Amino acid sequence: MQQKIVSTRDLAFQLYELHEVEKVLRFERYQDHSRETLQAALDLALKVAAEEFAPHARLVDEEEPTFENGRVHMRPEVHKALDVLKSTGLMASSQDYERGGMQLPSAVAQMCVGMLKGANVGTQGYAGLTIAAANLILAHGSDEQKSRYAEPMLAGRFFGTMCLTEPHAGSSLGDLRTRAEPQADGSYRLFGNKIYISGGDHELSENIIHMVLARLPGAPAGVKGISLFLVPKVLVNEDGSLGGRNDVALAGLIHKMGYRGTTSTMLNFGEAAGAVGYLVGSPHQGLAAMFHMMNEARIGVGLGSVMLGYTGYLHALEYARERQQGRPVGEKDPESPQVPLIRHADIRRMLLAQKAYVEGGLALCLQGAVLVDEKKFAETGEQRELAAGLLDLLTPVIKSWPSRYCLEANSLAIQVHGGYGYTREYPVEQFYRDNRLNPIHEGTHGIQGIDLLGRKVSMADGRYYRELVRRIEATIAEARKQERLASNAGLLERSLSAMVEATRVINEVKASGDKEKALANATLYLDAFGQVVVGWLWVRQALKALVGLGGAGEQTEGFYQGKLRACDYFCRYELPGVVATAELLQSVDSTALDMFDEAF
Amino acid sequence: MQQKIVSTRDLAFQLYELHEVEKVLRFERYQDHSRETLQAALDLALKVAAEEFAPHARLVDEEEPTFENGRVHMRPEVHKALDVLKSTGLMASSQDYERGGMQLPSAVAQMCVGMLKGANVGTQGYAGLTIAAANLILAHGSDEQKSRYAEPMLAGRFFGTMCLTEPHAGSSLGDLRTRAEPQADGSYRLFGNKIYISGGDHELSENIIHMVLARLPGAPAGVKGISLFLVPKVLVNEDGSLGGRNDVALAGLIHKMGYRGTTSTMLNFGEAAGAVGYLVGSPHQGLAAMFHMMNEARIGVGLGSVMLGYTGYLHALEYARERQQGRPVGEKDPESPQVPLIRHADIRRMLLAQKAYVEGGLALCLQGAVLVDEKKFAETGEQRELAAGLLDLLTPVIKSWPSRYCLEANSLAIQVHGGYGYTREYPVEQFYRDNRLNPIHEGTHGIQGIDLLGRKVSMADGRYYRELVRRIEATIAEARKQERLASNAGLLERSLSAMVEATRVINEVKASGDKEKALANATLYLDAFGQVVVGWLWVRQALKALVGLGGAGEQTEGFYQGKLRACDYFCRYELPGVVATAELLQSVDSTALDMFDEAF
Repeated sequence: MQQKIVSTRDLAFQLYELHEVEKVLRFERYQDHSRETLQAALDLALKVAAEEFAPHARLVDEEEPTFENGRVHMRPEVHKALDVLKSTGLMASSQDYERGGMQLPSAVAQMCVGMLKGANVGTQGYAGLTIAAANLILAHGSDEQKSRYAEPMLAGRFFGTMCLTEPHAGSSLGDLRTRAEPQADGSYRLFGNKIYISGGDHELSENIIHMVLARLPGAPAGVKGISLFLVPKVLVNEDGSLGGRNDVALAGLIHKMGYRGTTSTMLNFGEAAGAVGYLVGSPHQGLAAMFHMMNEARIGVGLGSVMLGYTGYLHALEYARERQQGRPVGEKDPESPQVPLIRHADIRRMLLAQKAYVEGGLALCLQGAVLVDEKKFAETGEQRELAAGLLDLLTPVIKSWPSRYCLEANSLAIQVHGGYGYTREYPVEQFYRDNRLNPIHEGTHGIQGIDLLGRKVSMADGRYYRELVRRIEATIAEARKQERLASNAGLLERSLSAMVEATRVINEVKASGDKEKALANATLYLDAFGQVVVGWLWVRQALKALVGLGGAGEQTEGFYQGKLRACDYFCRYELPGVVATAELLQSVDSTALDMFDEAF
Repeated sequence: MQQKIVSTRDLAFQLYELHEVEKVLRFERYQDHSRETLQAALDLALKVAAEEFAPHARLVDEEEPTFENGRVHMRPEVHKALDVLKSTGLMASSQDYERGGMQLPSAVAQMCVGMLKGANVGTQGYAGLTIAAANLILAHGSDEQKSRYAEPMLAGRFFGTMCLTEPHAGSSLGDLRTRAEPQADGSYRLFGNKIYISGGDHELSENIIHMVLARLPGAPAGVKGISLFLVPKVLVNEDGSLGGRNDVALAGLIHKMGYRGTTSTMLNFGEAAGAVGYLVGSPHQGLAAMFHMMNEARIGVGLGSVMLGYTGYLHALEYARERQQGRPVGEKDPESPQVPLIRHADIRRMLLAQKAYVEGGLALCLQGAVLVDEKKFAETGEQRELAAGLLDLLTPVIKSWPSRYCLEANSLAIQVHGGYGYTREYPVEQFYRDNRLNPIHEGTHGIQGIDLLGRKVSMADGRYYRELVRRIEATIAEARKQERLASNAGLLERSLSAMVEATRVINEVKASGDKEKALANATLYLDAFGQVVVGWLWVRQALKALVGLGGAGEQTEGFYQGKLRACDYFCRYELPGVVATAELLQSVDSTALDMFDEAF
């Protein structure tokens, strides 16, 4: 199959050699699965991605959905691709068999969605949001809510949305104002305005189930007074048949730089008598319920960013191999033939950087997905608790690192294409525009940084942070024993030590009470911390590559050599910058914090 | 005047306090000028930019030019804005009085164009290209060519283009194939295809004058066999009246990610009997003629990048002051009012980074423009030669540094806006798309890096490089004497020393004959070199700010404090990364160069 979405050789390496996903198959939940069944699901997803999603990715960018006569119009290719996806059962790939699911391990289920994102992030959005909303109902809803709403969602009959943001509050969820008034029949009536609701209106499904954050009367102020409601676009009768339209109105579409295929909407709840809604979970526990799903949602964002970077890299690689241009430095004869772009050192550097970013990002996201499975299904309570803690710690990194570095990969893919890359006649500029959303939604870099440094690093008295450091040190020790990797191990150790020291100093400042100063450079901390984690994953990849080289026939020599060299690149070109940042962090610099308004 | 294009206070500081532009007014050419006349031109350009260019910047992005029935259609606002611009005489602002010009110093003339770029880079493109093409004729053309073509261009009756790139050769100009056949009457007939010709066709002017690179019969292969031709769209009679259409055909429009207001075209020369063209300058000297203008063209690209970053910064600053969202770290009361975004440390950091990038970039471009004047008009030959050498050395930095860091400023402006910044309802996403062209056109980062490290640094046996280092060292010595700046001086010295050592080591490798290895990381060298240069300009700004603080009343205290803090930011947050890069450069690492195709 001709596709430029992912290297299947790399994916197999990452799943089976690096992360040893077969180990999670020992968990009871996955006893029916084998490497073959996992591969069948991945092959199916890749086929759907390449054949049904990728071909119209440019089309939905150029002809984004429109809102006319009260209805949202979009290209028929979107309907068709989603119909094919529904028919495969992949919408429920991670769900229980009893809900019609495949019970796939998280890493594989995430990859199935990830390949759709790499192929066409706009069309995939509708399916991804539906899966997320259904998961929320399955985790916190009543049995009736599960069967009446979640099951039709997993079957693709209903689609879903997440309604958090309000125009006046942005990321400050504690300030949201949408209110829910209790009714005699146990339901609620909702009144309020939501913004940036992806997939908020369309005609791709029989119904749309909105998961809405709102306040009950007398609820505490701030984040502790938020409840979660299920608000269908069309009311659903007890027997599952559809009733009348609910009081949810599309106020308008938002026009984005990229990600254009997914409608982004402003929704008004309760313009008339109020939108009928149903409480999901307990009163005032809405944000907790939402955050319960946040780890997986944030892995989804990280992986989406990786896959946009990955497809950009594969496009750039193909272009660099085919396009003849210029001559090597030192070649003086102007009549000698032009050489392929890939022959130029700077092009190779840009390709190698892309490879280091996207394959490093993929390793990072899959690491998170493996922890999701361990957290839920590992044999002992201790294992599950440790996995949960490590996952919490790594989540802000998984969300944010790819959305910076794989966006940079997209920029490098443009640069490899030169002027052509800047045109809409080539696909790489769209990947760059699409990917620019990822540093913003599901929590900006700034919010992830405060989450990591203000909460996660010191959670459980620093237990998970120390465990992560211990694991990185173990990898360093292992790599030191390999002559080929000794210098990379040294570079990783240098950056780790610098960040450990920065963490210690900042924790002291936090303990002294000056939290604002301690967190002033949390975004830089997040970035440097992420570099160390990805450096660790690169050294681990290199260790596995040495194993592979030991046993491999000649035909895979190139693949494993590529892993070693990408590891070299990451350690030599990326990690030294961490030391510089860590030194700044150690000084608990307050240049930005102290800047005052009149001085701008 | 309400505008978010540039801070007029900063511009005055940069021109009169930092670069002391009044000193160039001593040159004979500028004897009629005073600070008042310069200011009048700047005020006029800013007024035209704010009132005629900025209001339709979004419009020409959304409704880009179309090609229908053989004609290019575009919004009438473009015509009107350009008509107003023509009427001001600003198109000829740097030209001789005798050509209808204003004889403005280069820094001021560049800024007049720069403000138009910040306001609306799409519409400005037509004027900018015309000025560049006219300059080329004035520098190398015959008297007849000057009066028949250049003068109507400066008056805005004719517009111009630069036709370099061909589809099969991209940046590799030596491979271009367009051929020019001599005719009995002394003219030529041109045959060939050109691509990415901005402003290549439209109906904004009576005529379009294409400056075309092509080969004469029997010309040497490569860059030494390229000649420059003037090819009008409509032939011009001896009396200046218009004749028939020339054999130049629009083959199609190219659709770009940004910069959409400027048509980008594919042009066919000589589909029938050949396009009538006239040789400009000597045979085979076309590239030299083109490169003669390259310093100024590249300052123009750098400044365009700066101005897009600058307007983005001012938009983000206003938004951060007005938008109420969230509470400071440590504020526990959810009923306390939300605070303006600018109250958050991470927002301030992003604003301060933008300030450091755009004001640093402006200082860099104006430094280049001052050297243009010194090179042409300084009193002694030695002064002129030194200025020319420094300008040559700095040109790749001026071209490339802003196109990386002011693009990053645009990304930060989006991030300050959060989700709103990603929408086309706010202007910052367009600045980001527009600015992404600048790392590509007029020579990519890769090409600028090879120019700097392969040629400029060692030019004249390293004389200009050493002079630059000497000037930076002098600034460091001066700053050391000021307690407020001593630590910044130390940071600058550390990064300078690291780069001096890297340069020494690389020059040795070059001398040993392995040029490919020596230049393998030229792009990283370019970046780190640029950081040192901008660090130098920031310390110079800080020194002037101390002078200002000494004499100023309270009303400008904030402005000068802002300069000091932006200098702190640059030295503390940006320069340490230079040391890390310089260490890599010192190792003459060949990880990327050695990467082989099968390993990707």
